[in-house]
Amino acid sequence: SLLSQRRLPDEGWSNQNIELLLHELSALDSNNFTDNIGVGEREARIYSSIVRSRHFGLGHGIGRAGDIAASQPKAAGSSLISKLTSYLVQDAFKIAGLKVAKSCLVVPLATGMSITMTLTALKKMRPTATKVIWPRADQKSCLKSILSAGLDVVVIENIIQGDEMTTDLLKIEEMVDSLGADSILCMITTTSCFAPRAPDRIVKVGQLCKAKAIPHIINNAYGIQSSKCCALINEACLQGRVDAFIQSTDKNFMVPVGGAIIAAPSEELTNAIAADYPGRAAMSPILDLFITLLSMGRQGYMTLLADRVECHKHFKESLTQLAAKYNEKLLESKTNLISFAMTLSTFDRPTEIGAMLFSRCVSGTRVVDVKGEKDICGFKFKGYGSHGFQSPYISAACAIGITKQEIDEFIHRLDKILRVHPRRTNPASQTTENIIQDGNDENGAENE
Amino acid sequence: SLLSQRRLPDEGWSNQNIELLLHELSALDSNNFTDNIGVGEREARIYSSIVRSRHFGLGHGIGRAGDIAASQPKAAGSSLISKLTSYLVQDAFKIAGLKVAKSCLVVPLATGMSITMTLTALKKMRPTATKVIWPRADQKSCLKSILSAGLDVVVIENIIQGDEMTTDLLKIEEMVDSLGADSILCMITTTSCFAPRAPDRIVKVGQLCKAKAIPHIINNAYGIQSSKCCALINEACLQGRVDAFIQSTDKNFMVPVGGAIIAAPSEELTNAIAADYPGRAAMSPILDLFITLLSMGRQGYMTLLADRVECHKHFKESLTQLAAKYNEKLLESKTNLISFAMTLSTFDRPTEIGAMLFSRCVSGTRVVDVKGEKDICGFKFKGYGSHGFQSPYISAACAIGITKQEIDEFIHRLDKILRVHPRRTNPASQTTENIIQDGNDENGAENE
Amino acid sequence: SLLSQRRLPDEGWSNQNIELLLHELSALDSNNFTDNIGVGEREARIYSSIVRSRHFGLGHGIGRAGDIAASQPKAAGSSLISKLTSYLVQDAFKIAGLKVAKSCLVVPLATGMSITMTLTALKKMRPTATKVIWPRADQKSCLKSILSAGLDVVVIENIIQGDEMTTDLLKIEEMVDSLGADSILCMITTTSCFAPRAPDRIVKVGQLCKAKAIPHIINNAYGIQSSKCCALINEACLQGRVDAFIQSTDKNFMVPVGGAIIAAPSEELTNAIAADYPGRAAMSPILDLFITLLSMGRQGYMTLLADRVECHKHFKESLTQLAAKYNEKLLESKTNLISFAMTLSTFDRPTEIGAMLFSRCVSGTRVVDVKGEKDICGFKFKGYGSHGFQSPYISAACAIGITKQEIDEFIHRLDKILRVHPRRTNPASQTTENIIQDGNDENGAENE
Amino acid sequence: SLLSQRRLPDEGWSNQNIELLLHELSALDSNNFTDNIGVGEREARIYSSIVRSRHFGLGHGIGRAGDIAASQPKAAGSSLISKLTSYLVQDAFKIAGLKVAKSCLVVPLATGMSITMTLTALKKMRPTATKVIWPRADQKSCLKSILSAGLDVVVIENIIQGDEMTTDLLKIEEMVDSLGADSILCMITTTSCFAPRAPDRIVKVGQLCKAKAIPHIINNAYGIQSSKCCALINEACLQGRVDAFIQSTDKNFMVPVGGAIIAAPSEELTNAIAADYPGRAAMSPILDLFITLLSMGRQGYMTLLADRVECHKHFKESLTQLAAKYNEKLLESKTNLISFAMTLSTFDRPTEIGAMLFSRCVSGTRVVDVKGEKDICGFKFKGYGSHGFQSPYISAACAIGITKQEIDEFIHRLDKILRVHPRRTNPASQTTENIIQDGNDENGAENE
Repeated sequence: SLLSQRRLPDEGWSNQNIELLLHELSALDSNNFTDNIGVGEREARIYSSIVRSRHFGLGHGIGRAGDIAASQPKAAGSSLISKLTSYLVQDAFKIAGLKVAKSCLVVPLATGMSITMTLTALKKMRPTATKVIWPRADQKSCLKSILSAGLDVVVIENIIQGDEMTTDLLKIEEMVDSLGADSILCMITTTSCFAPRAPDRIVKVGQLCKAKAIPHIINNAYGIQSSKCCALINEACLQGRVDAFIQSTDKNFMVPVGGAIIAAPSEELTNAIAADYPGRAAMSPILDLFITLLSMGRQGYMTLLADRVECHKHFKESLTQLAAKYNEKLLESKTNLISFAMTLSTFDRPTEIGAMLFSRCVSGTRVVDVKGEKDICGFKFKGYGSHGFQSPYISAACAIGITKQEIDEFIHRLDKILRVHPRRTNPASQTTENIIQDGNDENGAENE
Repeated sequence: SLLSQRRLPDEGWSNQNIELLLHELSALDSNNFTDNIGVGEREARIYSSIVRSRHFGLGHGIGRAGDIAASQPKAAGSSLISKLTSYLVQDAFKIAGLKVAKSCLVVPLATGMSITMTLTALKKMRPTATKVIWPRADQKSCLKSILSAGLDVVVIENIIQGDEMTTDLLKIEEMVDSLGADSILCMITTTSCFAPRAPDRIVKVGQLCKAKAIPHIINNAYGIQSSKCCALINEACLQGRVDAFIQSTDKNFMVPVGGAIIAAPSEELTNAIAADYPGRAAMSPILDLFITLLSMGRQGYMTLLADRVECHKHFKESLTQLAAKYNEKLLESKTNLISFAMTLSTFDRPTEIGAMLFSRCVSGTRVVDVKGEKDICGFKFKGYGSHGFQSPYISAACAIGITKQEIDEFIHRLDKILRVHPRRTNPASQTTENIIQDGNDENGAENE
Repeated sequence: SLLSQRRLPDEGWSNQNIELLLHELSALDSNNFTDNIGVGEREARIYSSIVRSRHFGLGHGIGRAGDIAASQPKAAGSSLISKLTSYLVQDAFKIAGLKVAKSCLVVPLATGMSITMTLTALKKMRPTATKVIWPRADQKSCLKSILSAGLDVVVIENIIQGDEMTTDLLKIEEMVDSLGADSILCMITTTSCFAPRAPDRIVKVGQLCKAKAIPHIINNAYGIQSSKCCALINEACLQGRVDAFIQSTDKNFMVPVGGAIIAAPSEELTNAIAADYPGRAAMSPILDLFITLLSMGRQGYMTLLADRVECHKHFKESLTQLAAKYNEKLLESKTNLISFAMTLSTFDRPTEIGAMLFSRCVSGTRVVDVKGEKDICGFKFKGYGSHGFQSPYISAACAIGITKQEIDEFIHRLDKILRVHPRRTNPASQTTENIIQDGNDENGAENE
Repeated sequence: SLLSQRRLPDEGWSNQNIELLLHELSALDSNNFTDNIGVGEREARIYSSIVRSRHFGLGHGIGRAGDIAASQPKAAGSSLISKLTSYLVQDAFKIAGLKVAKSCLVVPLATGMSITMTLTALKKMRPTATKVIWPRADQKSCLKSILSAGLDVVVIENIIQGDEMTTDLLKIEEMVDSLGADSILCMITTTSCFAPRAPDRIVKVGQLCKAKAIPHIINNAYGIQSSKCCALINEACLQGRVDAFIQSTDKNFMVPVGGAIIAAPSEELTNAIAADYPGRAAMSPILDLFITLLSMGRQGYMTLLADRVECHKHFKESLTQLAAKYNEKLLESKTNLISFAMTLSTFDRPTEIGAMLFSRCVSGTRVVDVKGEKDICGFKFKGYGSHGFQSPYISAACAIGITKQEIDEFIHRLDKILRVHPRRTNPASQTTENIIQDGNDENGAENE
């Protein structure tokens, strides 16, 4: 029925049933045939019984030389899992509110490499266009993914609007006019990013792309969990042009790092990407997603999404109170409904707060102190890590799977640190260096 | 001691000990800290207990935005496994006879994508060079990996020498002179490929590359298991120029498809490749290799290598006898010590033999009937699948992990088919189509 | 800290941490030593890697020839797990409200065999006493456990009190007087059993046992989950004599069938039982309990206990309403707080209702129609399955781990069946046969 | 086909296929039904996902109140595994050379408890017989298993014959005459035991039992691996009376400790034992055996048996040489083809040699110095551990699964110790204490 329905089961399956299915599918791969004789150079012989068992005997990976999405005759079971996963993902997208994904390519590459793959495929279609217009988002891997594809990045600085950093549409239009649409391979916009960066105004960008016949790629890394991001993409597709949107499997579906979903309103681009892929690839990230989606079921996934919304409300209230206690402010955003930024203007050396959090087993926050300029892959960024924002702040995310308990404990630990942290005697005398301190990533990039 | 010795244990470890180590290392990753509070967008929360367990709780993948080989502060255990794996691989290379690998980058990408990554990194160093000289090897994924990097392929047709297809050095030299060394990004040679293709004459090519200052990449996909291929690479490095050699983890070390090792005589290029990688990546293929190498140990690996040599001898004798029985010939090769090609000149519609083998659970053979021309990714290849060879033949490989029992059973099944297969009444009246029939891959590409 | 604290962790451990500990402990067993050479007849060599892995490499079982609770020098890790499990169980008992267990012997035998073992040990202490006084509880395995020990059973029929069947204390006293205390090996009372049987009046029985110097064993199979049963045992120990109380691991702690806990107010009897055990025994049920208790932690276990109380309330209300709808009655009990009995007096052929429930995937109910006499192991029981109760009824249990969802679904399915089931035209014209129909056990025994 | 053939597969199954089967069978148990609602007190809810996974979701154990071999309606899959295991065992017995097992009851009890169960069932059939005639074998658990059943042991001292201790048939006959056959519940003979104890002369004992109508139980703990023991049992059944023979699953089939096989020439006794068992029991030891037998297959098992014979030859030669080197003697046995005894007459304090071996990671040897008397369970044994033999010696076993490498390493380590161990200046001046030192078991009992 999974095969015929091609959608998430209503109730999540038991581990028992999932494992039964995996063993049944694995038995369809030739390396698991009782009579199989392999005299090729690659026969999915697995040496270690630990390794065999952790992959349920699936050894052939996915794809074949011709196409990463093609069925592998030696591995009917693996191929089926790969296909089914893409159907399940499409259904999960609908549940999350993303209605416009007509094609979902699940690849064993993280978001960055998936963007590179997408750009490479686009480049074949527009061989003379070499520039990528990219509204700044202080996240190193997206920038690198464009450079990896051998393209020129045109950074568009953000403008401030209310408490948020958002897309400078005018500057994009000017840039298109000045460069000429034909020289522009595509625009890459971002939906999910750390506050106070808002999601890009992708509806407007999409309209512009449509008008100018420029491809439009959306980096929606962890946006599936936010119905706001999903609604924006729906709208951008309806009113404008979107060629593909890319999301991480681990950030949206609670699997280990390693996969991404390249989705598109039509099959053309995803087919081209699949056909471009040179050779086979690992199956593991796809298998993880397959198992996880069966385990969640529609109910489980809806509960996770609803819980996150609940947690977001709770997180916001808690941070608002905490900010008030220290004369700080929780920055307002109507569109970034995943992460928060709270100012740290009254504290001395605010980045030390990030370090202290990390040493107290809090991971994932970023404390940004916004002076100076930084060179990232040859580009100069003012106040890197802040997306251009002009005050020190701490950000934190309310990601899928978080619990109220964790939020409360985070607030508690942060409060304990702030209580004793030295305050700024003269708020104007800020350092001139740009420092981000979260223990996670010296470059302030999100942890791609 | 593993940490200090950084080499394969003499005796393979028990599963018990391997799992203990994995759990200990996993406990170093922040998502497994008892007190951890994650408020980032990526905290390695794992939904399914099946998924968590199959990854031993390792959820953060490898790398960080800046560098795929960099330690991830959130994931000290994962980072350590990644480092250790590269040491173990280097040691395994030495055991196999490959002495010149000063740097080994283990990536969660199969061979094809790894070549693309290598080319991309090279391109940054030689931005104006766009051509890749590639002695023909009828394997689709290598060709695609060059095209994926946005480069121009210059195919060099092979010459026949004895029973083998081998490198046309003169034509390469002519091509270098006619194109100009500066326009050539690199040469890509091939060591391991299906008979009757011999390994490229990489020592000579290396000498030419050195003389002309052209980078030289070796596609050594499954060559580590052959001491001949290893010796060739050693020699090519000593006497000429080699920038990197790339090998598959699954084809050489009996793990599931999904990883490759980019090795080089110096750290420069591998560091550049690592630093180019946009974002994190899956850890699974690296973990498989780590487990497998610990499980094999030095003794286990040496036994596997020695058994393969024994099997090769046995395979050769068996095929020679079989060929004689049907007035066919086992093609001679002194350098391709992995696979065999046996002519099928006396049989009618030889490709049907491949189909019959596949339907009798024999995988990995290729039957090539060599007429006609084929378009692969825009290139015209005469007798595609034959590397240019001019007679119908069947090939089979003696890959690591094969057993004498399997070989005997293969010979038995092939014999049974040949016994009843119609013979050619007039050996001259061949069809004019180019057909390969092995059930595996319609394009005759090896099963990358 | 587990080793020093010897109590349940406050928070349950992650699977990750549990597995790490298991692998560490397993490394202490000699079969897992790297240098171990085994030249005995039993060296815990494990053939199958599936089997090795599912036991975490623990192969030596528990105990040694001298004593099932003794440390096995070849298996320090296994021995430690066994010891720790008994400490954790003792702590869990305290959490559940059972304060009087000074010694807990966890054995890889289910409740029935554990009672047999206990009786066998008692018999050595009172070699001339051969009779066991046993207030009737219609559960075959307890009766058999006495017979297996080669003893004579003296069945004491229950009396009805309110809606319940309960202990006939007078008859017991008479029996003691008539047989003579010296001829009585012990009394075996029952706390947890299917309604409308109440727990035995064990405080009174304990007082009698104390007065007459007769050992007293309590079959507390699934009573740990009920604070009422725990309180009764506490009281019986304080005011009277209790020698041992025996409980199932699977019924109380949600592990697979196979273990029991023989607990006692002093170490004397449990030591004697351990020392009597001939040879080693399986470790698996103990390992299951160890893993489960670590996984639950104090919080998890308390939550399970509290949830069961909540569910019991909900179950009672739901059944009361359902009973009213069909002019039936939910039988009242103040002491049996685990299971329920609802009359089925108005229905024709009530046992068919049990069959229909079973075919609709409801397991665990019993429908008893109480006429006739049945021979069980040579004993005649009137209305077997009813404990002596005089009206047809259906029983169901609210056991640990049940959810409100399950209860609602059960009520729903039962309602659907009752709605269409034929009613009795003349309630007096009952059949004269004694039939129990629950699909589970033709003998009406609980599913021991 | 497993279901229809009911015998070992020719080739062992892959882990993959075994796990697939287990998951399919597990899906037949009601706790794994998607729609199951459990309202009994025992519904195989499993709390920990580690526990669930290690049991493949099988939670119901085996048996039902009425009979441990009966099918459990709630657990069709578990019941089937139990049945199939008993068929596979019967087939394995035939492969090993034991032809007379018409019925095989696989129980989750080790050998000792299995003997107790067998005696308990016999006792019901012969209620007035209370004595068990037992030719001495210095193995505590067998003695205890008789005592646990509440029976009187009549120890028959062995006689020496050549280098071996063997059955004193005359004394047995005298004893039968003096006690009267009717008072004797049964004889328990032993086949597999540590040299220099020979297997009992069970053919003669069987003939006597037949003549006198006395039941005859054979403790064949690890005898299945020896074709000699199997042949003896065949012969004893043909020429005399054998009621049951009991063997350990772990000692014969390389599974963890915990199970035994009670086999018999007819079904009568095994059925009685099964029907006597009070309640359900753990399934784990049966599952281990099921997995292992499928994994071995007929070929694998035959190889193991043949390898053991090879190893035995090698072990014997190595020990003979070693003995000669130190003027000691390897004791001759024509019937005990599992273990060896080598004298240590020329060494001072020989038991220290055992301690040194244990501290050098050699387990399973026993060094016996044979003076004095020891009290075991109330019985006085002269030179306990020696079965009555009169010289200090060391014993070692060549058990199934051992490798030549292990044997060589053992000889090497023993040689190293003997080389420096002080020799006896006056071989006559032996100590008067009886000491066994092997680090394993202070009582010299084999490690049951």
